[in-house]
Amino acid sequence: MTSPTTFEFNQIGIIHSCYTEKFGIPRQPGLVKETTATLELLPPFNREDTLDGLEGFSHIWVHFIFHQCIQEKWKAKVRPPRLGGKAKMGVFATRATHRPNPIGLSVIKIGKIHKHNKRIFIDLHGADLLDGTPVIDIKPYLPYADIQADACGGFAPEKSPAFPVKFTEEAKQQAITYKNKFERNLLPLIEQVIEQDPRPSYLSNTTDRQHGVKLWNSNVKWLAKNDHFLVTEIEIEE
Amino acid sequence: MTSPTTFEFNQIGIIHSCYTEKFGIPRQPGLVKETTATLELLPPFNREDTLDGLEGFSHIWVHFIFHQCIQEKWKAKVRPPRLGGKAKMGVFATRATHRPNPIGLSVIKIGKIHKHNKRIFIDLHGADLLDGTPVIDIKPYLPYADIQADACGGFAPEKSPAFPVKFTEEAKQQAITYKNKFERNLLPLIEQVIEQDPRPSYLSNTTDRQHGVKLWNSNVKWLAKNDHFLVTEIEIEE
Repeated sequence: MTSPTTFEFNQIGIIHSCYTEKFGIPRQPGLVKETTATLELLPPFNREDTLDGLEGFSHIWVHFIFHQCIQEKWKAKVRPPRLGGKAKMGVFATRATHRPNPIGLSVIKIGKIHKHNKRIFIDLHGADLLDGTPVIDIKPYLPYADIQADACGGFAPEKSPAFPVKFTEEAKQQAITYKNKFERNLLPLIEQVIEQDPRPSYLSNTTDRQHGVKLWNSNVKWLAKNDHFLVTEIEIEE
Repeated sequence: MTSPTTFEFNQIGIIHSCYTEKFGIPRQPGLVKETTATLELLPPFNREDTLDGLEGFSHIWVHFIFHQCIQEKWKAKVRPPRLGGKAKMGVFATRATHRPNPIGLSVIKIGKIHKHNKRIFIDLHGADLLDGTPVIDIKPYLPYADIQADACGGFAPEKSPAFPVKFTEEAKQQAITYKNKFERNLLPLIEQVIEQDPRPSYLSNTTDRQHGVKLWNSNVKWLAKNDHFLVTEIEIEE
């Protein structure tokens, strides 16, 4: 009974998201409210009746797989970005990706549940999930059980402060061109993604260095200035 | 990319709990504050350093397996006890056990992290977990991300009201005998377990019917009266 065993799970869905690479993904859900994504149920789970009653809830728990980390070894100790990448913490005291089982958990605000042909989608707001992420379960968020008002949050007691983000005239114009072409307003999304400071900790004290982050089919270039970030260019990847 | 795939996970721990059978287990964590249980890390994950930093947090998320349901088929629609066992809801709008992947999720208040010989334990308060439950992940509860103060809870907006529980003199005496023998105070645990009304919905309108619930090595007998529950006997199972 006490010898460890293994369990096999089937993917039940997939995430479609603006985050097409790991770099730039917010470190927790809900930080970038502008993010829109969808969760698509996959066969044989793509049945509308599995979602009956979900419309009364505002949020769901999404259990997903850190699929780009699945081949990597787990680590007993990791360096959380919240501690500047310096101090090491036990992996079970963090939500790091290199876990013994690469299972992620996000609470996400849901929008419309809709159908296209036989495909079933749940709109997600503020998801911190990579495009293509496999989903293994969805559960309703139950405020009476999940809100632990007296909880204390160790080394991550509150949100990191946001960093001011500015845009060059050129970048603003490119965002307008992008919007006309793809009907997506990139400016607030870029602002909310970059104000989280997605830079790796070892670069967090450098200035005037160019960084890039991919959002949908755009490649956003920005510089770290002394007291703000400056978005200089929005390239469209055709 | 959009074809479903399967994932294999290793058990990282096991739950030791007073709930030795499914019947009587509270339907969410935290409802029965008196419950004490422990989570034991299993090899090769039984390393203290994997928990470094966890002492600063008050609560953890436990991802576990509904191991007694693992052979059973999933259901697209289930009858949540909250709806009196009558209305059916989509499985993904509930936390029912018969899910496509039988993964459970509980937020649990933690106590001491301690060691006996080479075994590592985390004390759990208010766990809703069956003895022997396999654990596949532990994550810290992050108040700033996990408390969704504006969430709405569909058909389960708040706790069910508690039902009054009384004890016969005989049952009280048996609880004292039990306490002297095993150093466990059963009375508050029994009260908190039974006030949740663990009866199956089809029996919830019957009176004077005897029910039994196993807690640790005791078998607790109780009757449903008109306006309260009456605990009549606490049998010790040797």
